[in-house]
Amino acid sequence: MFIQKIKSEGLSHLSWLVGNDGEAFVVDPRRDCEVYVEEAARAGCRITHIFETHRNEDLISGAPILANLTGARVLHGPNAAGDVAYADTAREGDTFEFGNLRVRVLETPGHTDDSLSFVIYDTDFGEDAVGVFTGDALFIGDVGRTDFYPDRAGEVAGMLYDSLQKILKLGDQALVYPAHGAGSVCGDNMADREFSSLGYERKYNDMLRISSRNKFIDAKLAEHHYQPPYFRLMEKLNLTGAEPAPRVITPRPLSPAEFRALPGGPAIVDARTVSAFLGAHLPGSLAIPAPMIPAFAGWYIEPGQPVVLVVSDPEQAHEAAQHLVRIGLDNLAGFLTTDMPEWSARGLPFHSLPVMHVDDIRERFQNPPENWQLLDVRSKTEYEEEAIEGSVHIYAGELADKTDELDKNRHYTVMCASGARATIAASVLERAGFSKVDVFLGSFGAWKSTD
Amino acid sequence: MFIQKIKSEGLSHLSWLVGNDGEAFVVDPRRDCEVYVEEAARAGCRITHIFETHRNEDLISGAPILANLTGARVLHGPNAAGDVAYADTAREGDTFEFGNLRVRVLETPGHTDDSLSFVIYDTDFGEDAVGVFTGDALFIGDVGRTDFYPDRAGEVAGMLYDSLQKILKLGDQALVYPAHGAGSVCGDNMADREFSSLGYERKYNDMLRISSRNKFIDAKLAEHHYQPPYFRLMEKLNLTGAEPAPRVITPRPLSPAEFRALPGGPAIVDARTVSAFLGAHLPGSLAIPAPMIPAFAGWYIEPGQPVVLVVSDPEQAHEAAQHLVRIGLDNLAGFLTTDMPEWSARGLPFHSLPVMHVDDIRERFQNPPENWQLLDVRSKTEYEEEAIEGSVHIYAGELADKTDELDKNRHYTVMCASGARATIAASVLERAGFSKVDVFLGSFGAWKSTD
Amino acid sequence: MFIQKIKSEGLSHLSWLVGNDGEAFVVDPRRDCEVYVEEAARAGCRITHIFETHRNEDLISGAPILANLTGARVLHGPNAAGDVAYADTAREGDTFEFGNLRVRVLETPGHTDDSLSFVIYDTDFGEDAVGVFTGDALFIGDVGRTDFYPDRAGEVAGMLYDSLQKILKLGDQALVYPAHGAGSVCGDNMADREFSSLGYERKYNDMLRISSRNKFIDAKLAEHHYQPPYFRLMEKLNLTGAEPAPRVITPRPLSPAEFRALPGGPAIVDARTVSAFLGAHLPGSLAIPAPMIPAFAGWYIEPGQPVVLVVSDPEQAHEAAQHLVRIGLDNLAGFLTTDMPEWSARGLPFHSLPVMHVDDIRERFQNPPENWQLLDVRSKTEYEEEAIEGSVHIYAGELADKTDELDKNRHYTVMCASGARATIAASVLERAGFSKVDVFLGSFGAWKSTD
Amino acid sequence: MFIQKIKSEGLSHLSWLVGNDGEAFVVDPRRDCEVYVEEAARAGCRITHIFETHRNEDLISGAPILANLTGARVLHGPNAAGDVAYADTAREGDTFEFGNLRVRVLETPGHTDDSLSFVIYDTDFGEDAVGVFTGDALFIGDVGRTDFYPDRAGEVAGMLYDSLQKILKLGDQALVYPAHGAGSVCGDNMADREFSSLGYERKYNDMLRISSRNKFIDAKLAEHHYQPPYFRLMEKLNLTGAEPAPRVITPRPLSPAEFRALPGGPAIVDARTVSAFLGAHLPGSLAIPAPMIPAFAGWYIEPGQPVVLVVSDPEQAHEAAQHLVRIGLDNLAGFLTTDMPEWSARGLPFHSLPVMHVDDIRERFQNPPENWQLLDVRSKTEYEEEAIEGSVHIYAGELADKTDELDKNRHYTVMCASGARATIAASVLERAGFSKVDVFLGSFGAWKSTD
Repeated sequence: MFIQKIKSEGLSHLSWLVGNDGEAFVVDPRRDCEVYVEEAARAGCRITHIFETHRNEDLISGAPILANLTGARVLHGPNAAGDVAYADTAREGDTFEFGNLRVRVLETPGHTDDSLSFVIYDTDFGEDAVGVFTGDALFIGDVGRTDFYPDRAGEVAGMLYDSLQKILKLGDQALVYPAHGAGSVCGDNMADREFSSLGYERKYNDMLRISSRNKFIDAKLAEHHYQPPYFRLMEKLNLTGAEPAPRVITPRPLSPAEFRALPGGPAIVDARTVSAFLGAHLPGSLAIPAPMIPAFAGWYIEPGQPVVLVVSDPEQAHEAAQHLVRIGLDNLAGFLTTDMPEWSARGLPFHSLPVMHVDDIRERFQNPPENWQLLDVRSKTEYEEEAIEGSVHIYAGELADKTDELDKNRHYTVMCASGARATIAASVLERAGFSKVDVFLGSFGAWKSTD
Repeated sequence: MFIQKIKSEGLSHLSWLVGNDGEAFVVDPRRDCEVYVEEAARAGCRITHIFETHRNEDLISGAPILANLTGARVLHGPNAAGDVAYADTAREGDTFEFGNLRVRVLETPGHTDDSLSFVIYDTDFGEDAVGVFTGDALFIGDVGRTDFYPDRAGEVAGMLYDSLQKILKLGDQALVYPAHGAGSVCGDNMADREFSSLGYERKYNDMLRISSRNKFIDAKLAEHHYQPPYFRLMEKLNLTGAEPAPRVITPRPLSPAEFRALPGGPAIVDARTVSAFLGAHLPGSLAIPAPMIPAFAGWYIEPGQPVVLVVSDPEQAHEAAQHLVRIGLDNLAGFLTTDMPEWSARGLPFHSLPVMHVDDIRERFQNPPENWQLLDVRSKTEYEEEAIEGSVHIYAGELADKTDELDKNRHYTVMCASGARATIAASVLERAGFSKVDVFLGSFGAWKSTD
Repeated sequence: MFIQKIKSEGLSHLSWLVGNDGEAFVVDPRRDCEVYVEEAARAGCRITHIFETHRNEDLISGAPILANLTGARVLHGPNAAGDVAYADTAREGDTFEFGNLRVRVLETPGHTDDSLSFVIYDTDFGEDAVGVFTGDALFIGDVGRTDFYPDRAGEVAGMLYDSLQKILKLGDQALVYPAHGAGSVCGDNMADREFSSLGYERKYNDMLRISSRNKFIDAKLAEHHYQPPYFRLMEKLNLTGAEPAPRVITPRPLSPAEFRALPGGPAIVDARTVSAFLGAHLPGSLAIPAPMIPAFAGWYIEPGQPVVLVVSDPEQAHEAAQHLVRIGLDNLAGFLTTDMPEWSARGLPFHSLPVMHVDDIRERFQNPPENWQLLDVRSKTEYEEEAIEGSVHIYAGELADKTDELDKNRHYTVMCASGARATIAASVLERAGFSKVDVFLGSFGAWKSTD
Repeated sequence: MFIQKIKSEGLSHLSWLVGNDGEAFVVDPRRDCEVYVEEAARAGCRITHIFETHRNEDLISGAPILANLTGARVLHGPNAAGDVAYADTAREGDTFEFGNLRVRVLETPGHTDDSLSFVIYDTDFGEDAVGVFTGDALFIGDVGRTDFYPDRAGEVAGMLYDSLQKILKLGDQALVYPAHGAGSVCGDNMADREFSSLGYERKYNDMLRISSRNKFIDAKLAEHHYQPPYFRLMEKLNLTGAEPAPRVITPRPLSPAEFRALPGGPAIVDARTVSAFLGAHLPGSLAIPAPMIPAFAGWYIEPGQPVVLVVSDPEQAHEAAQHLVRIGLDNLAGFLTTDMPEWSARGLPFHSLPVMHVDDIRERFQNPPENWQLLDVRSKTEYEEEAIEGSVHIYAGELADKTDELDKNRHYTVMCASGARATIAASVLERAGFSKVDVFLGSFGAWKSTD
């Protein structure tokens, strides 16, 4: 009996391969799902079942694809927003046996109406749960978002409360296997730790320590979460079943000539580091460092829009493409193989972004440049907690749709917590035609630490 | 400018990825062709052309599949047996430029009517060829078979002679890149060396040293080659274009219960070593050690027939499946995960094959067991060169179709050069219902070395 | 904060890399310990501490070697059998901080006098333990052996009882990370599952459910465990600190000529499968299939004795060598690259072992061959639980030293539970000059299932 | 018989593993030499001989280390600058047999006095050479440097001429296997192609087409080559035999606090891309992008000097460390795991370098800033071929020792061919205390292409 965690970085998505006695199941597979089959085969197991804890909003489910590869049966909860074309419905109390490993279904709605948890038992040992796959109901240190049904906000928060009580009844001894770890947009306060037990969570998860159902609902209603537009695409694809990932994830290399000859309107995604973008980049390109693609690409790229990548090397092209594939923004025209020195040596155009030090910013507040504005692109929650006086706020993700709230004649210095999201935002402004943009590297972190 | 050899072991098939200045072409890709795209991307190249030296008989061409993955154009010779659905026709003198790398087409028929060679030039340096991709026209130490048009045997042998003269005219300095290396069924006398030049071949390849066209034709007509039945399937698929390989090559693991419950008539292919098969094996299984699958599976498995594998571990299942996939015998039902001790401990049936030592054989010739026959399953050529007096000959490959030439009441000791093919043949006899079969381990090698 | 399990198969040894905030520690590293440094670097962590739960008897500790590679400090418990040259002494209550990850030492003697457990806390969350590294004190489903101090058998069993109570006080919520999983010689009844919590173990681990200290001691005294002779070597090396593993684990390939020319008395270890050994093997070779090397090589190979391997391929040579390196029997002269057909084709000597089916055995009991004896080589515990009437018992591990209890003129059929250990034992008999030996494939498993 | 190229990128060093019939030799192994043993074992070969074409100046020889790992014998040419402690002397005509593969020694001095070439024959085929390992005597498209004995410049150039004639006599058919490919500092005009024959070189290698010995000498004397100071270290270590590479190449990760606490004077090597350095970097750090380390680190780092790395990720730390290890500058204190946004968010200091576009430069020539100077850091050969009027020249490598030729009060814009070496040079100036430094990105390439 083994449990193998297969993590998608960036999304901080946790999927689980569980095997026993030659059979295996997968909980919440991702789109590029050959890995489950290969790992299962290595362990001498064939995958017979796929369990979905809920319809994912933030990534493409690999369930229909994996089912196709393996012949496994997909189980999904009731009350999905529509008919999950590729799945059978699992209901409270349904059980599945894999030798001495038993899986039992708990309906745990709240995050979504169709949320399930899957409890596992070792029937050689005893009647209590060994562990539970909690999906987006219970995380390590936090619980799931309940902002997906705005009309029923209080109702679904209450449903989640009830679901969590049901889960806790499994007993302190049960290990917890959630669908996300720290860094996911599906929860803000997760522990930077992917192992826990119900006993530990019961004692130390702040949301489980809230003393009443009503206070829990109040706490959930007070949260603020963002929903990038690509969530709509995910919801659609995860009902009907998405196409498999490309057989080769890395897109094709392009010479500068081909790169420039690409037809109409691809998004140019610069997946290099923040520093590299600041140093030199292609005019019109979006700065989205590869690890930040899962969190930000879905704000700026339209479903189906062609994407070309600017990267440091083919490995980074692979990483960036993998992130894009997992969220369905994978109309990939290729990646540029030429670095900035070589690019510029051909006389081709490039930009740099002026980099501001915390001392420069303090100086500017003393002697403001003409028509200057400090723009903070952190989340609303972060900004409201504490901000630099005199700054204005637009969230980086929403900036592309809000550039008309800004003035192209003004001089913007963009900041966030460190300079990373600020660089993304600065690239959004540059792309929108703003010409006086610079980046406060160090940002709020530097401001506070040098206070 | 780089040339990367990608070899398919067993088939001893050599394909070539050639890149320059961000572009690449592939010569004779195999079916599982993601590797070319990945290697090209690693080198910063996109594949724009695929060159086929001829229609392969012994493996599935990856050209249409790779074209689909990359958008590359496929070039194939004229005079194919039919319309090559996925390819454009390349003709003598056609040239293709990849920066300073030029490719020029030579028509070099003989092995097949559509055979081409592709000559490469470095236009930064000079007008002579740097190298030539010779397909199955010229190998290192040998030349191509000319037995595929039995009605025109002399004619095509002569055509090959003329083609070789044309190739030699490229000059001694040109490097030779053939489509097969030693071990292939496409030639018997290849060097165990995959690097040479036209100068070296001109001097030392016995077939190129034959003094006249007529003598060359005579030599070719005197050769004997086998054509396993799956060649017909390859010829068909390589006109129309085969399906891609499965996304996961390793088939699914099966428990003994599932293994035994498989419906109707799968071929059980035991891909373990010769020794392991001799020690214990499943009744009715075919011994085809994984590395021998390319040479022998095509004799015993029907196109479309389900196959189940008996292997030592999942890696061997992968290796065996890869071999089968490359020759299109990939209706893979799974592999058995249970080793013989565990299998037998469940009370399930197994067989062993008695193993004879060379001393046993000499003793048997002295005191022949009742109704005993020594059966030599080497190739006709090997047998005719030298054999043990008193042995009879049927080639291992042809044995499945010739069991009616044998007598189930006789006691057969099977031999070959070492015991490997003999074990395959013994398994064919067992499967056909022969009950008194044993294997002469060491076989002709032991016989001679202890003479 | 992450916990990564690094498992040594065969030994079923579990070591743990734990990292947080750029720092990491390792619990119970093995000898080939580059993996910890590489994995830690991949996670952006440097290893600063190495914790040993006890002085291992069954494998070479990598602690001194890893300390040398990294500069990390090694912590070992008090009361080791001597001075642990490479370690500082850790005592009850000592704590170590890795950012918000705190480690606290528990003295948990019993398995050995120096046994420690290491409790981990997430100080961002709360005062209760998140988990505990229990070494050989507490396993999943079992507890540690207490047979290493025969003179103090009851005393140390009682000490273990007390230690387990101390561990259980950490609370049901704590996860359990032991030093061994199922298959280890360090415990017979472990769950085939490497995840659990103290809550689960408290409820379902039979040894923790024993109602009193005295009954626990009785239960431990009633157990029977084997101690292979190489344990003495481990105990010695793990005080002084062993040499690093060879830089290249795979030993050198040898041709048949070199293989035969090796000087004086190497052990020939045939690491191929059971079936392969039965089919054909080198005279005088020991059958120890690679995965069984950790459990059996230490019975038959002397410290320092040269070893040559017979394998199916270089990967198996690597696997076998890795097992031998981990237990210090790594005076490796090389591996034979020639398979049995090729070996025998050179006229070189080989043996086969006759393979008996369960029907053959029943028939023999009906009509016993002359001077025939069924020899059962399972463990004493297995044999005493149930055995075939008429069989005699010698444990496979002890057989090499007990061949004088057997008669070379008798005909022995060797059996175990499946035929695997029987084949090992048969090879030991052959090597000792017994000439009438065969193997009951399926063994007790087949006997029972066909009863 | 196989030849496997093992290339060290950056150094463009080619080493060769050649195997036949279970035995193998290596030509010019590098320091991190486990790869040869592993690849040989995979091919079933043990390494018995190591051939050195000459004493390398640009990298640490792995010969003594590999000899130690394998027991192989090292062969080195006569007339080395001293006694090669780990090698036997090979002389003209010495032959070595590996089955049907014969190696014959040619003395081919000129590049160095001890230079050898190793000719290979396939004795199954014929008396002419199949190929030749030419070391630094003959490259593809160029010949070796002859600047290592300044007092005997003409003499050794003539010796090289004679050696090349000797090599050419092997015949057009022989394949050429040199010790370096394009990009090496050991030759300027190599083809970007690592395959050729003597016939091809005879026809198209410009240096082989020179009509007389004297003209060849003149051509060699007219060349200009740089010798980075670390060459002296290599020469010393390659006489006595260097230590093995560290067992783990990747150095240890360091937090910002540890990084800053490192004692006295480490070189901070920023191995990130040019763009990333321009965007933000640590004050006092040297820009040496990982692929440029082999060419430039040896100019700026003293033997034995501690080095800390600034990298994008642990993989880059590995790549950078590997380069440094191969040239013996491997006193590696660790690598910084923190990227610039996070670093700056802690309030820690960083710099950016202003980036100039070609238009900026043209504008500056129109309206020169005060006290401004354009500094070209390309090689002397490049600068003398063509340069921007008004620029001054100091080679990037020599800049660290020539900063006193510059004026700290001046404003320098640094240029090269593309901006890459210019960034290195700018970092050297910054480190030396120059405060008005910027980089002309695109450099001479942009200047010419926008002319």
